[in-house]
Amino acid sequence: MKKAHIVIIGGSAAGVTAAITCRRHYPDKEVLLIRKEREALIPCGIPYIFGTLGSIEKNLLPDAVVKGSGAEILIDEVVDVKRDEKIVITAGGERIAYDKLIISTGSVPGIPPIPGIDMDNIFPIEKNAESLKKVMERLKGASNLVIVGGGFIGMEFADECRKSFKAKITVVEMLPHPLMLNFDEELCIAAEEIEKKMGVDIMAPERVESFIGNGKVKGVRLASGKEIEADMALIATGYVPNTKLAEKIGLEIGPTKAIKVDRYMRTNDENIFACGDCAEKFSFFDGKPSNLRLASIAAMEARIASANLFGPRRMNEGVIGVFSTILSGTVFALAGLSEKEAKAKGYEITVGKWEGVNRHPGSMPEAENLKLKLIFEKGTGVILGGELMGAKSGGEIINMIGTAISKRMTAEEIARSQMGTHPALTASPIAYPIPNAAEMACIGP
Amino acid sequence: MKKAHIVIIGGSAAGVTAAITCRRHYPDKEVLLIRKEREALIPCGIPYIFGTLGSIEKNLLPDAVVKGSGAEILIDEVVDVKRDEKIVITAGGERIAYDKLIISTGSVPGIPPIPGIDMDNIFPIEKNAESLKKVMERLKGASNLVIVGGGFIGMEFADECRKSFKAKITVVEMLPHPLMLNFDEELCIAAEEIEKKMGVDIMAPERVESFIGNGKVKGVRLASGKEIEADMALIATGYVPNTKLAEKIGLEIGPTKAIKVDRYMRTNDENIFACGDCAEKFSFFDGKPSNLRLASIAAMEARIASANLFGPRRMNEGVIGVFSTILSGTVFALAGLSEKEAKAKGYEITVGKWEGVNRHPGSMPEAENLKLKLIFEKGTGVILGGELMGAKSGGEIINMIGTAISKRMTAEEIARSQMGTHPALTASPIAYPIPNAAEMACIGP
Repeated sequence: MKKAHIVIIGGSAAGVTAAITCRRHYPDKEVLLIRKEREALIPCGIPYIFGTLGSIEKNLLPDAVVKGSGAEILIDEVVDVKRDEKIVITAGGERIAYDKLIISTGSVPGIPPIPGIDMDNIFPIEKNAESLKKVMERLKGASNLVIVGGGFIGMEFADECRKSFKAKITVVEMLPHPLMLNFDEELCIAAEEIEKKMGVDIMAPERVESFIGNGKVKGVRLASGKEIEADMALIATGYVPNTKLAEKIGLEIGPTKAIKVDRYMRTNDENIFACGDCAEKFSFFDGKPSNLRLASIAAMEARIASANLFGPRRMNEGVIGVFSTILSGTVFALAGLSEKEAKAKGYEITVGKWEGVNRHPGSMPEAENLKLKLIFEKGTGVILGGELMGAKSGGEIINMIGTAISKRMTAEEIARSQMGTHPALTASPIAYPIPNAAEMACIGP
Repeated sequence: MKKAHIVIIGGSAAGVTAAITCRRHYPDKEVLLIRKEREALIPCGIPYIFGTLGSIEKNLLPDAVVKGSGAEILIDEVVDVKRDEKIVITAGGERIAYDKLIISTGSVPGIPPIPGIDMDNIFPIEKNAESLKKVMERLKGASNLVIVGGGFIGMEFADECRKSFKAKITVVEMLPHPLMLNFDEELCIAAEEIEKKMGVDIMAPERVESFIGNGKVKGVRLASGKEIEADMALIATGYVPNTKLAEKIGLEIGPTKAIKVDRYMRTNDENIFACGDCAEKFSFFDGKPSNLRLASIAAMEARIASANLFGPRRMNEGVIGVFSTILSGTVFALAGLSEKEAKAKGYEITVGKWEGVNRHPGSMPEAENLKLKLIFEKGTGVILGGELMGAKSGGEIINMIGTAISKRMTAEEIARSQMGTHPALTASPIAYPIPNAAEMACIGP
């Protein structure tokens, strides 16, 4: 019987990071990554296949990343695990023994129970090349594309598809504006206006009641009574943890329907760890279960799980949630809690705002506007979150804010922090957004 | 007699930040900023006047920044301070009473004692418009420009002047490579090669022994015995604190020849504070005097000084030193201590390195390579520094490292930190440089 010291199930962000990290920490152990997809995709790059990148081939996660670390890859599906014997069994009939097992089976599209959703030309956005190839093929002929769901994936698909395809695009979102699960209202309205200006129709708040058609989709009936034409639809209503295998083998499942793990990423089987979208998460702020599922969190959890396989070395402090997107050239990003989320968690807050250009003087090339908001707990002054909109450099600035959150910095500390500045690369030292926004919070409203 | 509650002397990064901060913290106090220059320049933008910006007018620090805060500006020179009476006296004959005084008189070029340095067409790089206008005028006719000093200013001038002027440019640097006071050797060699490829001649290690000419410079005699033609020269050998006024009025001067201040930015006169290039600095790492002088440090110190005018509110933890530059499209940046500096301070260190693209997949537009090195103290794992080279996003990534240093994060903490990632804005979650470089340091060499 085959054997690998460490077996990893799943080959996306968590699985790949786990493979590399295991090889770094245990260069003497054999690491085997088993995934069912012949080609692995970069998950966050999927929307960009349909516009900026132009092809699925440009969005592949190269096997060399895993193989270069000395880990092996097996293309097969794990269908069972004999936990007592510490053996995985694959669809291809392999039986492979392990010492430690990491489950990183990711997430799958959540399919809402809308009548008619099974009709032809309606696609959930699956993270596999075969399904996406079909979407690409059908998009070429589509005249009216409806995207159900105005979250990150829905909005990124809308923004990318409008670049490459002639179809009229309509996004249907249940909340009053797109992206409202992520950002405070002001940014959501800005994102909505940007996409509308680019010709994307956004119907919000609105709900798809049923799909109309005869085998093939022809239209969408909305809760408001309106009907819109649609010869193609994409379902972008979110993802749910893929726990099929974990449930089958009797691992505990938590309240968010993900595999239950402790702060060391251990499941209820001491030899099985889980990380990434399939694993339960809890909030950095209050330890409560969290529905945040991000590739960056998956990679972080994989680094923790891998380091802990043979003894506890790293503790998971919970998800902060740092993410960004770009719609028609404008960046939207959040680290930690939005104002709305902070209030919902029961915090009394103080907010500091700043707006300015990200170069100095503003006449330097590539100068763009950046709007920043920092959110602090009122009593302690500890930073809870930061939200920004505008310049591309915001994609890295948000990470500085994430770092400050992770160390529970106060508005006072941030106001006197040292930020390196350069005319061609950043805002000016006088007007650098982070200390200025913190200062505005220090002095209060 | 005129009176302002708060008088600020000097109108560059420290003075302007102080004026704004004072108005924020004490909206009932009158704030008067006195500067001698009719037009204030953005100090770090000065090299860019000669290439990217193309004119001095595009690099002015608008008075609206100060006036918009409710502070006043007086164009005049403070020539004396009657400390007992708390009155400043200007060259224009004004006597102005103050409650609190902030001195932010900046720095002036240090002129090396090279024979012939007084000849015509040899210019120190002064931070005033009149002098720079003359430099601009003369550059137009120059055929052979020698820049003495290959630090930041010298290299930025070389890189910018080559874009706009026909003169052959030679940089003469005493150390083996340019930028060696700032970066580890590898980056210095890379910067040297980049500029050489762009046609800039760099002579290092080499020293200017004297200027040759007859009233007007005609050439440069080097310590090696070589002579090179030069019909124009720029002196970029660094700046020294401008303490003329402070010395005259009897303020204590420290070991770096800057105004002595405590951790609250107070001078030995309890009503006089100093900040920016004219004020003494000490290292975040060991409290020893530091010669780092940066606009971003000046702004930080101004925020501390201003908040402390009427009672101690903010303590200065010392200079970390976060800076960046860009030469011919390649960013060079450092936060904290380089490997060389850490060793010189007596640390035993561990280094973690990482290299990769700053987008994912690498086929996304604007993808650039980034090379990162993080430096940790061996025993504790506390981060001491980070050095990077490559992508423009490095200008903000270095600030995240600065934040980590300020909170004394360990390699272990950084290895499991959460970095938000996006295909169009950052490296991939698997290959994000900061946790990966930290991980390499965790597992050791």
